[in-house]
Amino acid sequence: MGPLDSLIANLSRLPGLGKKSAVRMAFHLLKADSAYLTELGRQIATLKDHIVRCSVCGNYTEIDPCEICSDVRRDQTLLCVVEQVQDLMNLEATAEYRGLYHVLHGVIAPLDGVGPAELGLGRLERRLSDGSVREVILATNPTLEGDTTVLYIHRLLGAKGIKITRLASGLPVGGDLEYADRLTIARALKARAGIE
Amino acid sequence: MGPLDSLIANLSRLPGLGKKSAVRMAFHLLKADSAYLTELGRQIATLKDHIVRCSVCGNYTEIDPCEICSDVRRDQTLLCVVEQVQDLMNLEATAEYRGLYHVLHGVIAPLDGVGPAELGLGRLERRLSDGSVREVILATNPTLEGDTTVLYIHRLLGAKGIKITRLASGLPVGGDLEYADRLTIARALKARAGIE
Repeated sequence: MGPLDSLIANLSRLPGLGKKSAVRMAFHLLKADSAYLTELGRQIATLKDHIVRCSVCGNYTEIDPCEICSDVRRDQTLLCVVEQVQDLMNLEATAEYRGLYHVLHGVIAPLDGVGPAELGLGRLERRLSDGSVREVILATNPTLEGDTTVLYIHRLLGAKGIKITRLASGLPVGGDLEYADRLTIARALKARAGIE
Repeated sequence: MGPLDSLIANLSRLPGLGKKSAVRMAFHLLKADSAYLTELGRQIATLKDHIVRCSVCGNYTEIDPCEICSDVRRDQTLLCVVEQVQDLMNLEATAEYRGLYHVLHGVIAPLDGVGPAELGLGRLERRLSDGSVREVILATNPTLEGDTTVLYIHRLLGAKGIKITRLASGLPVGGDLEYADRLTIARALKARAGIE
């Protein structure tokens, strides 16, 4: 296998890239300038040398603990539990949340062999044991696995006297009742609220 | 800008990748094993060290001239002109063509500043001057630019006594008359053939 074919094979392993996109990408790289190739190649090869998981919250970071965990201006009584770092980034992008995070790096999925132990829920439990956190927001996805994880964490932390909430579920902004699925409509109906 | 952000910025420059796909890809890479990252990074960084354009046909190759140009079993009287190396690969994949190729690495597009000189059509003309090629198949895309290129090359080579053909244009296999555009239907009608 030549260098082009083996590059295509490795590019095909990236998410969202089929064989055709990998081929197109490889040919694009062949036309790109060498400085860009050298830089991109180095960035990929050394990515993990620079970035680690925050030992406190699980966020990806260059300095451990991460910027968010070390920021004393953030609300230390509020902890938001997310499935993955991308979710943390999306929540940060809203600029609406000023508490701390806990990244599970997954979700309870018995069929995939991911149980409470694999998610390191013990680490979350220990983190809450000093009593400084007053509210835990469970921000897992509104999916079967996300809901299972919510129920499990709710049971795990229920006796600790910590307030446990989850993100509201309903119609997305800009969404269309016509195309919404029944479950979403049912939840939006159940959680209907007065007009402010 | 941290290493993750600058990686995302560079990944966004790849074709077909928006910001969101680049972010997803970067997080995928963070979870990938280090051996894969090292290999992929090295492949990208050194891609151009290994692969050059064939000095005869313009195909990408590790050894110049390329495998196809040096294959004496191929029909040396038949030359297929394509826009890009991907097209050559697709033609090879059909296993129907056993002649030689000429890769233009582009198409005449005056609006983009690509004229006959930029395409190196002089190189094509010189290649045909020894009289060994008897038929030139113009396999550019059936687009405005592809058609312009066909007309230009036809005029350029017309006086040389070489047979010049182009790929048939018509309905794609598995296509649907209902959804075909008018030009395609018109061409399919004009090039209609008896039933074998």
